[in-house]
Amino acid sequence: MQKILNPKSIAIVGASTDPTKLGSLILNNVIRGGFQGKIYPVNPNTKTIAGLTTYKNVSDIPQKVDVACIVVPAKHVTSVMKDCAKKKVKGVVIISAGFGEVGEEGKKLEDKIINIANKNNIRILGPNCLGFINNTNKTNLSFASMKPLKGDIAFMSQSGAFCTAMLDMSIPKNLGFSYFVSIGNKADIGEIDLFNHFMEDQNVKVISAYLEDITDGSLLIQNYEKNKRRKPVIILKAGQTEESKEAIESHTGSIAGSIETFRTAIKQAGIIEAQSTRELFNLMMMFSWSKPINGKRIAIVTNAGGPGIIATDCIIKNKLEIAEIPKDVRQDLKRNLPAESSVGNPIDVIGDATADRYRYPIDVLANSDEVDAIVIILTPQLVTQVEETSKLILNATQLYKKPIIPIFLGKKYVTSGLQRFYDNHVPAFTEIEDAINSLKTLYKYNHHTKNFSTQKIQKKWRKIKNKDKGDFEKEIKNLTTKKTKSVPDKLVEKMAGEIGINLPKQIVTKQISEALNFAEGNYPVALKVANEVIAHKTDMKGIYLNIADPNELLECYEKIQKEVYNLLNTKTFTMVVQEQLSPKVEFFIGASRDGKAGVYSPEIPGFGHLVVFGQGGIYTEIYQDFGYVLVPASKEDIKKSLEKTKIYQILSGARGKEPLNIDKIVEQIYKVQKLILLYPEIENLDINPLIITKRDAIAVDIKMFVSK
Amino acid sequence: MQKILNPKSIAIVGASTDPTKLGSLILNNVIRGGFQGKIYPVNPNTKTIAGLTTYKNVSDIPQKVDVACIVVPAKHVTSVMKDCAKKKVKGVVIISAGFGEVGEEGKKLEDKIINIANKNNIRILGPNCLGFINNTNKTNLSFASMKPLKGDIAFMSQSGAFCTAMLDMSIPKNLGFSYFVSIGNKADIGEIDLFNHFMEDQNVKVISAYLEDITDGSLLIQNYEKNKRRKPVIILKAGQTEESKEAIESHTGSIAGSIETFRTAIKQAGIIEAQSTRELFNLMMMFSWSKPINGKRIAIVTNAGGPGIIATDCIIKNKLEIAEIPKDVRQDLKRNLPAESSVGNPIDVIGDATADRYRYPIDVLANSDEVDAIVIILTPQLVTQVEETSKLILNATQLYKKPIIPIFLGKKYVTSGLQRFYDNHVPAFTEIEDAINSLKTLYKYNHHTKNFSTQKIQKKWRKIKNKDKGDFEKEIKNLTTKKTKSVPDKLVEKMAGEIGINLPKQIVTKQISEALNFAEGNYPVALKVANEVIAHKTDMKGIYLNIADPNELLECYEKIQKEVYNLLNTKTFTMVVQEQLSPKVEFFIGASRDGKAGVYSPEIPGFGHLVVFGQGGIYTEIYQDFGYVLVPASKEDIKKSLEKTKIYQILSGARGKEPLNIDKIVEQIYKVQKLILLYPEIENLDINPLIITKRDAIAVDIKMFVSK
Repeated sequence: MQKILNPKSIAIVGASTDPTKLGSLILNNVIRGGFQGKIYPVNPNTKTIAGLTTYKNVSDIPQKVDVACIVVPAKHVTSVMKDCAKKKVKGVVIISAGFGEVGEEGKKLEDKIINIANKNNIRILGPNCLGFINNTNKTNLSFASMKPLKGDIAFMSQSGAFCTAMLDMSIPKNLGFSYFVSIGNKADIGEIDLFNHFMEDQNVKVISAYLEDITDGSLLIQNYEKNKRRKPVIILKAGQTEESKEAIESHTGSIAGSIETFRTAIKQAGIIEAQSTRELFNLMMMFSWSKPINGKRIAIVTNAGGPGIIATDCIIKNKLEIAEIPKDVRQDLKRNLPAESSVGNPIDVIGDATADRYRYPIDVLANSDEVDAIVIILTPQLVTQVEETSKLILNATQLYKKPIIPIFLGKKYVTSGLQRFYDNHVPAFTEIEDAINSLKTLYKYNHHTKNFSTQKIQKKWRKIKNKDKGDFEKEIKNLTTKKTKSVPDKLVEKMAGEIGINLPKQIVTKQISEALNFAEGNYPVALKVANEVIAHKTDMKGIYLNIADPNELLECYEKIQKEVYNLLNTKTFTMVVQEQLSPKVEFFIGASRDGKAGVYSPEIPGFGHLVVFGQGGIYTEIYQDFGYVLVPASKEDIKKSLEKTKIYQILSGARGKEPLNIDKIVEQIYKVQKLILLYPEIENLDINPLIITKRDAIAVDIKMFVSK
Repeated sequence: MQKILNPKSIAIVGASTDPTKLGSLILNNVIRGGFQGKIYPVNPNTKTIAGLTTYKNVSDIPQKVDVACIVVPAKHVTSVMKDCAKKKVKGVVIISAGFGEVGEEGKKLEDKIINIANKNNIRILGPNCLGFINNTNKTNLSFASMKPLKGDIAFMSQSGAFCTAMLDMSIPKNLGFSYFVSIGNKADIGEIDLFNHFMEDQNVKVISAYLEDITDGSLLIQNYEKNKRRKPVIILKAGQTEESKEAIESHTGSIAGSIETFRTAIKQAGIIEAQSTRELFNLMMMFSWSKPINGKRIAIVTNAGGPGIIATDCIIKNKLEIAEIPKDVRQDLKRNLPAESSVGNPIDVIGDATADRYRYPIDVLANSDEVDAIVIILTPQLVTQVEETSKLILNATQLYKKPIIPIFLGKKYVTSGLQRFYDNHVPAFTEIEDAINSLKTLYKYNHHTKNFSTQKIQKKWRKIKNKDKGDFEKEIKNLTTKKTKSVPDKLVEKMAGEIGINLPKQIVTKQISEALNFAEGNYPVALKVANEVIAHKTDMKGIYLNIADPNELLECYEKIQKEVYNLLNTKTFTMVVQEQLSPKVEFFIGASRDGKAGVYSPEIPGFGHLVVFGQGGIYTEIYQDFGYVLVPASKEDIKKSLEKTKIYQILSGARGKEPLNIDKIVEQIYKVQKLILLYPEIENLDINPLIITKRDAIAVDIKMFVSK
């Protein structure tokens, strides 16, 4: 990575004298960007380009070549790659399009190139990309028509067009970048390599990305957790709906995983998700420029009542707080502001405020221990001094250590004031909503970082797993194929026993005599056909509850036997007989895998398993009141996620109900994780219902499916 | 109203020669605005201002005066008002501040002025306002430093500063207004007068407003429903949280009602709520400039895959649809676009598209019956032609009848293209999210308008009420005071009987002998202490369920008697004995009043009653899954609102459950409306539980409170 982003020498294969060609544009960008190393144009048809000696092949260059930038048509890329291998080039940037993104044929070509690269230890950026710009050492190896300003943001994008739009937005606002990387088809170098690099690079303060798919979610999270400096990472993820996933697949062949898995994963790791381009941009500005925020008590200073009210609404909706202005501060303000001013919060310096009117409240609030950030609203009124006020606010932002965020409403009249803020790297806004939303994210991030445990994921796994191998590894491996298969209830029972998942008193058997024996002394009981017999029992009347005596049990057995016979033409089947439990609350725990079976070994990509839990029974689907954790999560993580569900209020004893044993629920979820870590072959798992009694949580029905 | 907004003659009281004074600014605005009528400066200290004869008093002006604009200090306004009355001026615009917004003293002064106005039949705009601009007849009676462009939007604002910010935003985007009105403290003229005026004025196509409180919600809705031309009304309402309501009260003394009541009301009427300044602005542009949209199938044309995916996500999240491109159209596109293009939807004309590449897909989609609107995304890439593409899109918007909405991503490079759209009144965006959100609102509005019944509210009331007077009017009037009071269960029972609200078999009595008599033949029964005895029965063990026989009933009675004696020192109390019902689902119906008791007479302001309903029992509060209607709502309205709740899925038979009798629930809600219309003294009403059995909906417990 270091070699590619900081090359000492660059070959440009396809360099051209024709100014309309990409090969010419890139060469120009490299030269005009002020690149400090050697530049070698490669083009078989000419001797010099732009005064530089030009070579027929990369291998003809007598000196060392760190990076080759390839701008020739797709069909020629393979031979250029071979040539690069010959020259022992360590990195290539493939600008050329016509690979994975154009379908089967292109995909094959891409695989060929990857193959050459792997064999010869060459890293690839692209293909189908814009190139990259490293502003820390004046390397502009891209065909971008604009150059990003210098700054401390590292940005990467899976869409080249998104790069240019972002550049076009950033320049007028003076937002600067240390790196700007177009990752294209991600044939080799992807978000993780870049994240790792940026986390270590001291020129980077903020990492941001536009991504359509995550190549290896679990690795991303692991690496992020290693990130000791805790740099903020902000991701805009396209492909949040089924429809857009289709669009992604038809464009780049990427498979976008479940958005819930992605969200849970990044939330657990403390990565920030932007919901729109606008939000991504605002957050980049905020994290790059703002002072840190230590709490959520916001003060508002405004020259207009209405916008003050809108800001108040926004603060509350964003779960920040309206700072309580202490009585002495209020009195102090009262003495120093006109009688009509309001000195509560919002502090209204009223419409006839000139710049100087803002000074006193800003100073007082900046010095108050009761205020964590100040939002300053200016609307262009008759005597409003946009210039002077912006100067005064700018001074304050330089003097004080808490965020002081200007919001200048309007457009034409306030532009000059806003520009002063941008020029001086002060985050400033024209929309109240944007400002407050950015403050909230800054607060949440600072807060999360403070409370973040740096415990590494591998350690966590080991802690949760307790042992290296499941007792039933052989059985599960034998069962696992590419096609999804149901795990027999008998084996599920054993696995649950291994882990310590609570089951009711039960027997899994094919013999009605054994069933009757078990039932004796356990009435009332429930009788069910085993899950592996039929996936959806309720459709075939395969379940009977509250069976009171042997006669009834026998009767129910015969009914099921008849159904099974009709369906499967056999009289023998596995059944489960359980003690009948009466729940306080019905719960469920589900798990599903993103990626392949061996997901917990570093070679297999995917986020791993998402565990979901919530109220069971008829309300599950209609209220969708779920908690999520990505495996592995600590008991604390699980509890936190559970606490965010609404059903938690019932569990913890709302409305005078008796509180239930929440620790037992958390423990069962934790044990499901253990099960999954021992048996990553589990593709889906569904415990429904998990019956919550006053003292316990019991898994009454476990459906389990495995696949490679 | 007509006289004020279209004056033939204006007196400016406080007109001044000092250019820093408001009196001078306003006079200047009137003159430079090109006012066609007579202008009379009023100032006791000078003979002429700006070459115009100046008068000592309004009453000294020899000719007729339609409107007096008052710009003198608050303490002098009373005497100016008297002078205006003497001159028989029909309208005044009070610019002066220092009234209701500064506290008790100011409020008194404001009342005095209102008093003079009422006695002399004078209408007031303001006080504490910016004035107004009528662009249809060149009247600029304001001290705004900018002048709105001409157009067809009427805008009003309760915040003067919001006016100036909106002006500043509108001018660069070329967005034009027919009226621009600052309503200030709304001492007299408020949103309703203006809405009425604008609805009738053919120069107005779109009505928009920034409001902090609604003076008379029910009247607003009534008038809106009269609006036969169905002009879109867009409101940005500040004061959505408790905290911001406090801020409003401390600023203007207005009491902002419940945001749920406001939302339900305006939704029922088809008024559009903007959630932010930005959204308000975008919707004004969209409704003023866009072609109407007839369906929700959106096509996307883009020169970049990433933004196409983001747009797809947005369309789905906004509940619009990705248009299905017919096979023949796809094939046609395939033939006419480069091989790498994607011809599904989004249609990707790829990064090297010049302007001409956009032409074919736009024409084809504009002519397709399968597409209701086209969104065109441009990102500034290497060969992108911003100018040429914007010209081509502009032509298409002029040629075709469906909305064709350009989104140009970026900033600097795309500005000239965007400006071309604004200059030609084509709604255009720099943010995908804004464009799609605006399209959604346009679609929803067109759809709502199409399905809107113009039935008038008064008629609806009569229809629901059936009769003019409640049988128990006397009893309720006697009970009603300013202080909230509980209505005795016996009376509630009678009122329910009058309306036909379903009660269980029950008796309300003080005699245990009567209770025992009733219970005979009705066991199991429930015994409860009457609501008027204790508000929260469960706190005092005032309720016993599933009583099996007379002994148990007597036992329970004695327990309650003991509790009542301890609490109230009396042995007699009212109790309710009911048949014991077993519910399929527990439901509740609540109602609460916004405004005063006589809310359904036109003199009393307020939105009236909000009726809320949803799942009862322990889940009510945690899931907050409620339906709302504002009284009066038709059965159809009620059903629609019920259908939007999640519990509706259970009621209608989700997950294989038996469907319940939904019509019966709707009927009970409808009857609650009837009760409220007959007895507007009801401040709060709570039917909880409303027990839903397979065939019926029965109000097991009704709590009712009245107040003036």
